[in-house]
Amino acid sequence: MEQKLIYTNRVGEALDSLVDSFGTPEVYVLCDVNTKSFVLPVLTAQSTAVADAKVIITRSGDANKNIEALASLWKSLSDLGATRQSVLVNVGGGVVTDLGGFGAATFKRGMHFINVPTTLLGAVDAAVGGKTSVNFNGLKNEIGAFADADAVIISSCFFNTLPQQQLLSGYAEMIKHALLQDKAMLDRLLGYSVVYPQFDSEALLRLLEESVAVKQNIVTQDHGERGIRRALNLGHTAGHAIESLAMKYQSPVPHGYAVAWGMVVSLVLSHMELGFPSDILHRIADYVLKNYGPYDLTCKEYPELMDFMRHDKKNASPDSIAFTLLEDIGKPICGYVVAPDKIEAALDIYRDLMHI
Amino acid sequence: MEQKLIYTNRVGEALDSLVDSFGTPEVYVLCDVNTKSFVLPVLTAQSTAVADAKVIITRSGDANKNIEALASLWKSLSDLGATRQSVLVNVGGGVVTDLGGFGAATFKRGMHFINVPTTLLGAVDAAVGGKTSVNFNGLKNEIGAFADADAVIISSCFFNTLPQQQLLSGYAEMIKHALLQDKAMLDRLLGYSVVYPQFDSEALLRLLEESVAVKQNIVTQDHGERGIRRALNLGHTAGHAIESLAMKYQSPVPHGYAVAWGMVVSLVLSHMELGFPSDILHRIADYVLKNYGPYDLTCKEYPELMDFMRHDKKNASPDSIAFTLLEDIGKPICGYVVAPDKIEAALDIYRDLMHI
Repeated sequence: MEQKLIYTNRVGEALDSLVDSFGTPEVYVLCDVNTKSFVLPVLTAQSTAVADAKVIITRSGDANKNIEALASLWKSLSDLGATRQSVLVNVGGGVVTDLGGFGAATFKRGMHFINVPTTLLGAVDAAVGGKTSVNFNGLKNEIGAFADADAVIISSCFFNTLPQQQLLSGYAEMIKHALLQDKAMLDRLLGYSVVYPQFDSEALLRLLEESVAVKQNIVTQDHGERGIRRALNLGHTAGHAIESLAMKYQSPVPHGYAVAWGMVVSLVLSHMELGFPSDILHRIADYVLKNYGPYDLTCKEYPELMDFMRHDKKNASPDSIAFTLLEDIGKPICGYVVAPDKIEAALDIYRDLMHI
Repeated sequence: MEQKLIYTNRVGEALDSLVDSFGTPEVYVLCDVNTKSFVLPVLTAQSTAVADAKVIITRSGDANKNIEALASLWKSLSDLGATRQSVLVNVGGGVVTDLGGFGAATFKRGMHFINVPTTLLGAVDAAVGGKTSVNFNGLKNEIGAFADADAVIISSCFFNTLPQQQLLSGYAEMIKHALLQDKAMLDRLLGYSVVYPQFDSEALLRLLEESVAVKQNIVTQDHGERGIRRALNLGHTAGHAIESLAMKYQSPVPHGYAVAWGMVVSLVLSHMELGFPSDILHRIADYVLKNYGPYDLTCKEYPELMDFMRHDKKNASPDSIAFTLLEDIGKPICGYVVAPDKIEAALDIYRDLMHI
C-alpha cells in the first residue's frame, strides 16, 4: 500500500476531510507536551475532528520513546474504548510518529493512523515510509514494525516554533535526498536560506514536497528494506557512529547534524572509491562547515568510531563495514564494503575539510 | 505473502532443510516449560539446527501471554545478539506461537520465524494465518500484528503427550472448518475417532492437512480480516461469551469446548434464520453432547451472555449482536445481526439439544 501524502499548510481542513473519508470514526490525538502547548490549540481551532477527539499525551524526547510509553499509549487506547475502526492522529516530531505509529499498528492488530509531523526532520524523514519503533534495551529503534500511516499531512506551518538547530537537522536529510536524486534539486536546496525566522515557509513546503517524493519513491520500491531502500542510509554509517560517540561523551548532537558530517565522510569515500565529482564534495563540505560547524574528531577516536560502524544495525556483518556511496549524484551503490585503512584516510580528509 | 505450510511427522528434518534454505542463519528456539521437557529433546536429537540453537524459555498458560513475557523475549533476543536475518522457531501451543510470532515480527522491525505447533488446537488454528498477539489490560489478544510465519511445520507426532481434553479442543476447530467447506470432509471428521491413545496419528495428519487448507484458503483471500475471514468466526460469538462467563465463575473451559457449544448455538440460529438443514444440526449437537458434554446454562445467565456477545472484539457495534451463520454447509453469511429475543430462543433450543 502506498501512503497517502498530503502537502498543505491548511492542516485542520485536510484532517477533517480525511476523517470524513474514513467514515467519521472516533478520533484520538497523540501529542507530546510541546505539541500539546504549541500545535494542538491551532488544530483544535481549525478542525472539528481534533476538537472532538480524545487527546493522549506522551513525554517528549527520544529517551521517552520506550516500551513504558508504548504500554501507556496502548492502555489509554484500550481504556478509552478505541477500536480497529478508530483513527489515531500523531501530532509531533519523530518520537511521536514512531511511537504512535507502532502503537496504532499493534493495537488490536492494527487501527488506522495519520501522521502530522510538526518538525522538519519528522516531515522529511520519520513520518513517511512506514518505519515505526521504540528504543529498547539501550538500543535505538530495537523494537518496531513496518507499518504505513493511512495518510501523512506534510506542512511547514509549525516550523516557526522550532529552534534553528532543529530546522538544520531536518535540512540535512533533505540534502541527502537531493544527492540521491539530481543536481537541480541540490542547487535549489543549497540556494535556499533555511535561517530562522526569515525563511519562506511556502517555498520550504515546495522543497519539502520534492524531497519527500524522493524518499517515497524509494520506499515504494522496497518497503521492507532489503535492497534499494538502503540508499537512504547515505551518510548514516559514519553519522550514527558520530551520534553514538557524542552520546557516549555525554554531549549528544542532533541527528541531522550527525548525518551532515556523516555525508561528508561518505562523499569523501565516494570520491576515493568511485570517482564521485570533487567539486560537489567540496560544495557540500563547505555548506556543512558553514551551517553545521565541524564535529571535532581526533585520530585517537577512530578505533571507537569504527567499532560503532561495525555494530550498526544495518551493517550486515561485524567483520566488515559497508557504506552507501555515490558514483555521482543520483547513482547510489549500497552495501559497499570499505577497508579500515581507507576509512581512516577518509576521516583524515574529513578533518581537513572541516578545518580541524 | 502466502505462508509455507509443511505437513510432516519428520519435523527435525523439515526444520533443517528450511533453515538451510534460509542460508543457515542463527537459530533461536522459543519453548514453554512443557515443550522444553517433552518436545525439545526429540527435536534436538533430530535436527542440527535445533541442537545448535539458543533456547529461550517462556512460562506456559494463557495468563503468561502478556507484555512482560513479550519484553522478556525481546530482551533475550537482543542480549543474545539476534539480527533480522536470524530465525526464531516457536515450539509450542497457541501461547508460544502467538507470543513468539509477535515478538519476532517486531524485533528490529521483523526477523524470520517458523512455527512448530505441538498441540492440535495450535496446529489447526493459532499457528496458521498470521495472527500474532499478547493479552493486555485484561483483554485477550488486545495487542498484536498480522504477521505470517516464514513457514509452519504441521505434524501430529507430538499429540500423544496431550490430554484427551486438549485433543478435543482442537478437533472442534476442525469441525468448524469442515462446516465451512463440504459435507464429505465433515463425514470424515465425525467418523474418525480422536480418542486418546488409540487415535491413528497418520490419519489425523491427513485430516489436519485438509482442515488447515480450508483456513489457509480463507486467510489468503482476506488477510486483514475485513471480509470473508470473518467466516472463521463461526461458533465464536456465543463461544467466546461462554468462555468469558466460565472464566468469570472461575471454572474456565477449554477454548475448543466453548467453540463446540457456540457452534451448536450458531447452527440453531442458522436453522431458524436461514433454513440450515436440521439433520446436520442434530448430528453436530449429538456429537458435541457425546464428546464434549453440555455446558450448563440457565436462563438467568442469558443477559450476561448477551452482554459478552455485544462487547466481543469482532462485534461491530454494541447496539446489536452479529453472528457468522450458515445457509448450508460451505455457505457462510458473515455479520448477520440477530435480535435479542431470537438469540434467547436459540439458547433455549441449545439447552434442549444438550438435554439440560
